[in-house]
Amino acid sequence: MNKGTLALLIHGGTENWSPQRWKQRFDEVCGDRRVLQLPDAGFDPADVHYAAVWKPRPGELAGFPNLRVIFNLGAGVDALMADPGVPKVPLVRVAVGDLTGRMSEYVVLHVLMHHRQELYLRASQREKRWAPKFQWPASAVSVGIMGLGTLGVNAAHALRHLGFRVSGWSRNPKEIDGIKCFHGSAQLDAFLGQTDILVCLLPLTPDTRDILNRGSFAKLNRNSPMGAPVLINAGRGGLQNEADILACLDDGTLGAASLDVFVQEPLPGASPFWSHPKVVLTPHNAADTDPDEISKYVARQIERFEAGGGLENVVDPARGY
Amino acid sequence: MNKGTLALLIHGGTENWSPQRWKQRFDEVCGDRRVLQLPDAGFDPADVHYAAVWKPRPGELAGFPNLRVIFNLGAGVDALMADPGVPKVPLVRVAVGDLTGRMSEYVVLHVLMHHRQELYLRASQREKRWAPKFQWPASAVSVGIMGLGTLGVNAAHALRHLGFRVSGWSRNPKEIDGIKCFHGSAQLDAFLGQTDILVCLLPLTPDTRDILNRGSFAKLNRNSPMGAPVLINAGRGGLQNEADILACLDDGTLGAASLDVFVQEPLPGASPFWSHPKVVLTPHNAADTDPDEISKYVARQIERFEAGGGLENVVDPARGY
Repeated sequence: MNKGTLALLIHGGTENWSPQRWKQRFDEVCGDRRVLQLPDAGFDPADVHYAAVWKPRPGELAGFPNLRVIFNLGAGVDALMADPGVPKVPLVRVAVGDLTGRMSEYVVLHVLMHHRQELYLRASQREKRWAPKFQWPASAVSVGIMGLGTLGVNAAHALRHLGFRVSGWSRNPKEIDGIKCFHGSAQLDAFLGQTDILVCLLPLTPDTRDILNRGSFAKLNRNSPMGAPVLINAGRGGLQNEADILACLDDGTLGAASLDVFVQEPLPGASPFWSHPKVVLTPHNAADTDPDEISKYVARQIERFEAGGGLENVVDPARGY
Repeated sequence: MNKGTLALLIHGGTENWSPQRWKQRFDEVCGDRRVLQLPDAGFDPADVHYAAVWKPRPGELAGFPNLRVIFNLGAGVDALMADPGVPKVPLVRVAVGDLTGRMSEYVVLHVLMHHRQELYLRASQREKRWAPKFQWPASAVSVGIMGLGTLGVNAAHALRHLGFRVSGWSRNPKEIDGIKCFHGSAQLDAFLGQTDILVCLLPLTPDTRDILNRGSFAKLNRNSPMGAPVLINAGRGGLQNEADILACLDDGTLGAASLDVFVQEPLPGASPFWSHPKVVLTPHNAADTDPDEISKYVARQIERFEAGGGLENVVDPARGY
């Protein structure tokens, strides 16, 4: 019997999501397993046992009657969970060190940018003003991380190493050395009240949608040396109420924001975020997935699965991540 | 006998160097020792045994016949070493955890800014372009740190924690876990040849003046995913040849530069650095000294010295730092 075919369904449109690049990497690591890059005319859909996907079209996955596992090539699976046409087989999300490290780079960079007053310093440079301002140390700033999965915990440790006070909030109780942990809706207000820089790395689920809203921002600590609190969202656009962010930046409830994700992506040209002086905007590139690392991760999981072993990082449909 | 008087000679002119703020902190930590904030009319210069200084005027320190120790309130002592009017008594520079941590914040921030293509991303935001570019991981970038004293070693560890490859170059041989160490002029070219981001934290001495010049920049690694190499100077302006930096940025020998220090400070308004699109400029605020921490450090050293103990971090006049 032939090994099950792996079908790649990749629709990105950006440089990093070149389907050819992914096909090449998967061919290298999949040995004699057939790897299809869809669309492809010459194959029988019944042979496809595995799908590796990035933004598949709604219903596209329903065309494979013998699908056994779906691998999502990024960390967020909210779009797949929302598609009723996705077959009810195990859905695996990536959790590789490379992706985790990239997210920590992003979080540390943006926390440091706000902590070290980069918006002020870049404006001073543009205006040719040599005007150093009082600078507080990292130990005077409390960073609060929403979401204590692999990504959140790694970012927390990186920030601790630089001297920040770090706390975290998650759905279920956690204990992490050096990190003050809060959990559940009952402890959300206490978590927010001691947070100067709020970093959101939550998955998007019905429970977390719109969690970054005026009510949350108004509860953040206003008595830090930074003055008004700062929001950093590298989770999903659906976590944030964008009208609230804009209004809170303008009335001083928030001092600044770094946003990597948006309700609509690419962000429309008419969005006020582009030119807002208190917004640091990135085009959903906080943590790119690396074809080298991810293709090996998928190939390794398929081999183990065919040998009768378990899959790792399977999404729990009840939780939604 | 009275305790020796401590005289504060502080000339800063910026918010962070308010002499009143320093006087207040020193009064708090010096017990019953008299603390003078100069100029002050009512005292006998012969009573002054200790001076804590920041940018004293040339010759100003010569007016104290019984001076025993001079404390410089920052890390760099090049200006004091160059002043022949400074009495030949032990000169102590600050080395406190607070200053070290602040410098690591600066180094990590600026390494990450260049690594994560912030100049490109900010330009994209200004132009309202959603255009993610290929992003390499930290493990693909080699950061080379010139100067492996307290500051350099701390920054090296912080960068290692984020996944960068880190090497260092110093005058004398060092062994540091996880850091590839080069030393002396014989190994300078080998160090530069494997460096993608060059971070300079050297003291300014006759040996290091002008060390950041076209010859050095041309030897940096050009085969990294970053393309052209990057310079970060948070040491002293005298370490850099500013005409060479500008010419090398313009002809592509350097891809970008973060500069915290300049030959002339404040940087004159006519300097091309202000508006250069490849320059990230900060007003010599990479590592501010905190009056709280530094005043305690000085008071502690005086107490130990009067009890017959040794001084820490005394400058070696032969080395110049």
